[in-house]
Amino acid sequence: MPELRKDPIVGRWVIIAHERAKRPSDYPSNGQTHAVTGTCPFCVGNEAQTPPEILAYRERGSHADGPGWRVRVVPNKYPALKIEGTLNKRGDGIYDRMAGVGAHEVIIESPEHLVSMTQMSEQQICEVLWVYRDRLVDLKKDSRLVHGMLFKNVGQAAGASLEHTHSQLIVTPIVPISVWEEMTGALEFYNYRGRCIYCDMVQQELETGSRVVLETPHFAAFCPYASRFPFETWILPKAHSSQYENIPKPSVDDLGGVLRQVLGRLERALDRPPYNYILHTAPFDHQEMPHYHWHIEVIPRLTNVAGFEWGTGFYINPVPPEEAAGYLREVEMEETGVR
Amino acid sequence: MPELRKDPIVGRWVIIAHERAKRPSDYPSNGQTHAVTGTCPFCVGNEAQTPPEILAYRERGSHADGPGWRVRVVPNKYPALKIEGTLNKRGDGIYDRMAGVGAHEVIIESPEHLVSMTQMSEQQICEVLWVYRDRLVDLKKDSRLVHGMLFKNVGQAAGASLEHTHSQLIVTPIVPISVWEEMTGALEFYNYRGRCIYCDMVQQELETGSRVVLETPHFAAFCPYASRFPFETWILPKAHSSQYENIPKPSVDDLGGVLRQVLGRLERALDRPPYNYILHTAPFDHQEMPHYHWHIEVIPRLTNVAGFEWGTGFYINPVPPEEAAGYLREVEMEETGVR
Repeated sequence: MPELRKDPIVGRWVIIAHERAKRPSDYPSNGQTHAVTGTCPFCVGNEAQTPPEILAYRERGSHADGPGWRVRVVPNKYPALKIEGTLNKRGDGIYDRMAGVGAHEVIIESPEHLVSMTQMSEQQICEVLWVYRDRLVDLKKDSRLVHGMLFKNVGQAAGASLEHTHSQLIVTPIVPISVWEEMTGALEFYNYRGRCIYCDMVQQELETGSRVVLETPHFAAFCPYASRFPFETWILPKAHSSQYENIPKPSVDDLGGVLRQVLGRLERALDRPPYNYILHTAPFDHQEMPHYHWHIEVIPRLTNVAGFEWGTGFYINPVPPEEAAGYLREVEMEETGVR
Repeated sequence: MPELRKDPIVGRWVIIAHERAKRPSDYPSNGQTHAVTGTCPFCVGNEAQTPPEILAYRERGSHADGPGWRVRVVPNKYPALKIEGTLNKRGDGIYDRMAGVGAHEVIIESPEHLVSMTQMSEQQICEVLWVYRDRLVDLKKDSRLVHGMLFKNVGQAAGASLEHTHSQLIVTPIVPISVWEEMTGALEFYNYRGRCIYCDMVQQELETGSRVVLETPHFAAFCPYASRFPFETWILPKAHSSQYENIPKPSVDDLGGVLRQVLGRLERALDRPPYNYILHTAPFDHQEMPHYHWHIEVIPRLTNVAGFEWGTGFYINPVPPEEAAGYLREVEMEETGVR
């Protein structure tokens, strides 16, 4: 069983995943992981190579764990957290631990072996966005679990071990420290000004314009003022909402195109960089909050995070976000497909 | 002039280093940076290839920026922060910024082209440790600056662009958020228990023993309970002190050997991995504090930090620190040199 351990100084939790343990000789000395070769377990026809599916959007008459699906959700074969068991919270001298209870799922976004979400139609991307929502709604019912994080790793440098387009969901029994820090900071602003800081940010960005990548009826995408990484891009809904799972249908329809545009522009500008995106949303045990605002952070992995960043939490970004947004706005997108 | 910008939500500062700006085409698509080739600017005889030296420990009669040095400190040729100018703090709508005033120095640890600190004698390492202290003492006099972070990047995956053994010092006009978080957490513990949490941690680790890598008269090295990374190792002085620059001479003499041992054991166990070490010490404008404790964090860079980690601040570590410490204790070190 994996274990959650808390750093007693800063309160950060770490997952110690015993069962993934490796001997020192398993690490290649260049710090890179090897790509998996052979047949792809995510392709249609290879359903038996994954654990049984949790959810799939399927053609009528097709059967679980067989072909006929459009989007498919399966448990991660090497999960960081496990769904069975009790939390068993306890102390260990000055330290705190609990059992690694939680969910770790893989969302297989396409039955075909596509390597980028931008090869999918807007409609297919929208189906993935609905799956995100359906899984959050389902897992919220488990009272042991408090937060769900949806994310995507593309390219080895961004932590991906399979290239077939997919996302992951990790649901944890505690609120992750970075979400907690965002909520705390946003609450302070709200207490002082009575407004959501993310709403203020969207307003200022759209007025200023220099950091905007694109704007649609329901969304704004921009390179944030204090971007940690070159070409970091955030996507925020214009209408205030703290919970992704409450997203209205017209917004899902819009977001499919926004995501395709933003990822497509990054791929064009940076020649298909490794990247991560992360959907930040409020914890399960909260109602809609006036101060927090769900959003997606897209982070191209162009620079290595070095000692200074680890030590300080200070990032050095060689590309001003105004320049990055300028490049991304100017990228010429193909007429077909990406609008 | 570089610029410091603050994320208005979580309060994290970012250095926007305009002058290092790159066009998108400058990024290789695999996310790696190219190694610099040609002659090494850090080797003895090539002193003219670096900016003029700030400090050097030299043989009597030798001249600045010529041969005869044992350790040499120069400004970083591509500094993230610059020493000239005023802070010029100001708002920008809801955002905050200031000029990127600070120091960014390189400590060249050896005149010979050694690629690892473990190729140096204990005495040479001790001289580097004295240089660390001398630079902090000197830069503290500048009232615009509040914190100094000493760190080392080894290997491309850890952010190094030159292989000649060196460390860096970045001195900032604000307290880095990660040091601030450590100090805040440690103060909370102190207010509640009246003790330094780091002192408690050293005591518990030495009593438990399972995570200890080595113990000397003045230091303890162990893999922390909530290690974020496989084989993460911390080095703490047993005697309480919040400021590295107050280190007594017997401790410097001891630390040279400890650092050589810890790095040597990591190199042996993991086949010369890329790594970072970071010296965490209190801000300049504080006297010795009863709750904070300087320390060195050594982080081998074996795993990629993926989307989940960026999104949550939650780390997944496949190697329990007890196993990592076990491997590091058992590594056979050569009789000569490393004790």
